[in-house]
Amino acid sequence: MPQLQTDVAIVGAGPAGLMLAHLLHVAGIDSVVIDNRSHDDIATTHRAGILEAASVRMLETPGIDSRVHTAGHRHDGIDIRVDGISHPLHFPDLVGESVWLYPQNEIFVDLAAARARTGRPTFHSVTDTRLSAIDSESPSVHAVTEDGEQLTITARYVVGADGSRGPSRASIPDSTRQRYFHEYPFAWFGILCEAPPSHEVLVYSRSPRGFALISQRSESVQRMYFQTPPGTDAADWSDDRIWSELQARVAGPDGFELKTGPIIDKTVLPFRSAVTEPMQHGSLFLAGDSAHTVPPTGAKGLNLAFADVAVLAPALIAALRDADAEALAGYSQTAVARVWKAQNFSYQMTRMLHTDETADPFETKRSLGELRSILGSEHGRRYLAECYTGWPQG
Amino acid sequence: MPQLQTDVAIVGAGPAGLMLAHLLHVAGIDSVVIDNRSHDDIATTHRAGILEAASVRMLETPGIDSRVHTAGHRHDGIDIRVDGISHPLHFPDLVGESVWLYPQNEIFVDLAAARARTGRPTFHSVTDTRLSAIDSESPSVHAVTEDGEQLTITARYVVGADGSRGPSRASIPDSTRQRYFHEYPFAWFGILCEAPPSHEVLVYSRSPRGFALISQRSESVQRMYFQTPPGTDAADWSDDRIWSELQARVAGPDGFELKTGPIIDKTVLPFRSAVTEPMQHGSLFLAGDSAHTVPPTGAKGLNLAFADVAVLAPALIAALRDADAEALAGYSQTAVARVWKAQNFSYQMTRMLHTDETADPFETKRSLGELRSILGSEHGRRYLAECYTGWPQG
Repeated sequence: MPQLQTDVAIVGAGPAGLMLAHLLHVAGIDSVVIDNRSHDDIATTHRAGILEAASVRMLETPGIDSRVHTAGHRHDGIDIRVDGISHPLHFPDLVGESVWLYPQNEIFVDLAAARARTGRPTFHSVTDTRLSAIDSESPSVHAVTEDGEQLTITARYVVGADGSRGPSRASIPDSTRQRYFHEYPFAWFGILCEAPPSHEVLVYSRSPRGFALISQRSESVQRMYFQTPPGTDAADWSDDRIWSELQARVAGPDGFELKTGPIIDKTVLPFRSAVTEPMQHGSLFLAGDSAHTVPPTGAKGLNLAFADVAVLAPALIAALRDADAEALAGYSQTAVARVWKAQNFSYQMTRMLHTDETADPFETKRSLGELRSILGSEHGRRYLAECYTGWPQG
Repeated sequence: MPQLQTDVAIVGAGPAGLMLAHLLHVAGIDSVVIDNRSHDDIATTHRAGILEAASVRMLETPGIDSRVHTAGHRHDGIDIRVDGISHPLHFPDLVGESVWLYPQNEIFVDLAAARARTGRPTFHSVTDTRLSAIDSESPSVHAVTEDGEQLTITARYVVGADGSRGPSRASIPDSTRQRYFHEYPFAWFGILCEAPPSHEVLVYSRSPRGFALISQRSESVQRMYFQTPPGTDAADWSDDRIWSELQARVAGPDGFELKTGPIIDKTVLPFRSAVTEPMQHGSLFLAGDSAHTVPPTGAKGLNLAFADVAVLAPALIAALRDADAEALAGYSQTAVARVWKAQNFSYQMTRMLHTDETADPFETKRSLGELRSILGSEHGRRYLAECYTGWPQG
């Protein structure tokens, strides 16, 4: 029955939890990390692949030795296609920034290796995780280890980086916790395929048939998505039907053609926005998906989690090392301001690029007007590029 | 029973119809104008007061002799207040443009005087207006004059500049005409008051109590508005109650106080968006409110009507003087692109600044995030300033 004492107990060994653990470690702050998934489960979960420049800079922290610059690809923009017409946005020209294609599971592998090198404990595949005494100055995290032992971690602070379904969020009393939620009237059909890249950057396409996103993963594996009604069954879609639908949604007078290949994965992703406020209570602090979920359209999910950590890490360090808890007291307020900007951007990208059969004809025309208004204005393109490449952290 | 022959028959003697008549006259093209209202009715209708720079330049056309530069006021920006905090936007710094405060009824007086000086006919207070043979090359407009005489105007082209309730629009066959419509879940309570200006530019205020707009008219008369539920009865609102509500919606730590005075007019304005496409059929062309209505939040109504005229006038001149009907054939497509940008901007300003009791809590937070995202970004402020001061015409 292990009883551990640490500075910060971190629930969740995904990128947010491990990045926080590393930043604390570099500053001499101890942490214990637990996760209900196995290392391999996390390493094989395919998620977002676009990193803001500020997220890349976090991966450059000494000791992480991330492969982002060797295995990742710098993307100098995106291409927005409207009814078959290409509108390339070149981010360095517009806002002096770039983004990086570097899949989330690769980030996890980097961070897990960095964590292992510190020799500090990470418990995977735990069950029955629960928090206690978060109103006190010695909160605890309880779980059952993979070996069936009862684990108790007592810390000065607890961080809930345990994703949208983790237990941390529910530890904040209902009376002080507000949940904001929005469900969208569509889902994304996502595929992984063995093919060369069809384009050098991500292609976001609005067409009368609906939205499609042509993304990349590596030289030989690509990720693509298309808007589909919620409740779509992936089994109803043959490879031929998928390719024909994707091609129809990006077709245009420039003859843009997708490079096809065997489809090795098909998934239907739900589409929703959620925010929990406040992101802190007593000695508990939420980071990443445990506090907020964004639709993938704006590529903000992981970046928002890292931005939380960029605020939370120095605040925890100031509180624990310098006995200055002021920044920590303001964590939620600081983080939430960015969360709502990211929620708005994700919502706006979604609204502008998808066709919504539940919307009235006015809304369909207006959202097309919104897209054309932004793409037709240099200020609009700069504003969109700034949202996409990310606002300053902290 | 007057039978008139002219180049262009213009239905509607408001600012759009008269501006078109003047631009045609300057180019040697004849027109006859009719309106179902009297000169005084139009001259005393209080409407929008903000002109884009491009609209001001149209008023500088030789022969109009507009008082915009002597009686109007240049406004170098607007102030957006969010929960009592002022966010001034300085348009010359942001986009090198300004707007002008010059009420629509003053514009009408200028244009009506210019029309009178040309000696060409304008028939006011007509009834039973109807269009015929718009599919032909000699369409007609029929009406009964103030004196009870049957009037027939036969022309090469007919322009419907007869407002949102005029008969022109309905002359386009149902089968080719699409109407887009959006109703908003609130109205505006508008007042005219005898008081000095409370601020040098328009103040748009979002507060938890709802939206308020502090506008100006002259040194001694001001125009103010506040969001109210549809169906509000102006009679339920005493002057004291109005002032107290307006003040509460603009109050903030900077101690901003409204300058009050006797309220001389109270009106509840409906709030809706509408677009008719196409804006042309055969020999008929729609301009201004006959084809589109915008909510007043973006100050786009009159400017959009003038922008239509800025496209339509040279197209008519090319067709009639140079026998080149290509621009005229593309009129609707050109005009409609701007219409949807303006609809989107008006909708966006409305959505960002009003509180919507019918919206879910997510939407309330997201729209506040949208406002803060734009105001917090120089690119966002420039984009908003560009939308407000207006896109290039034509």
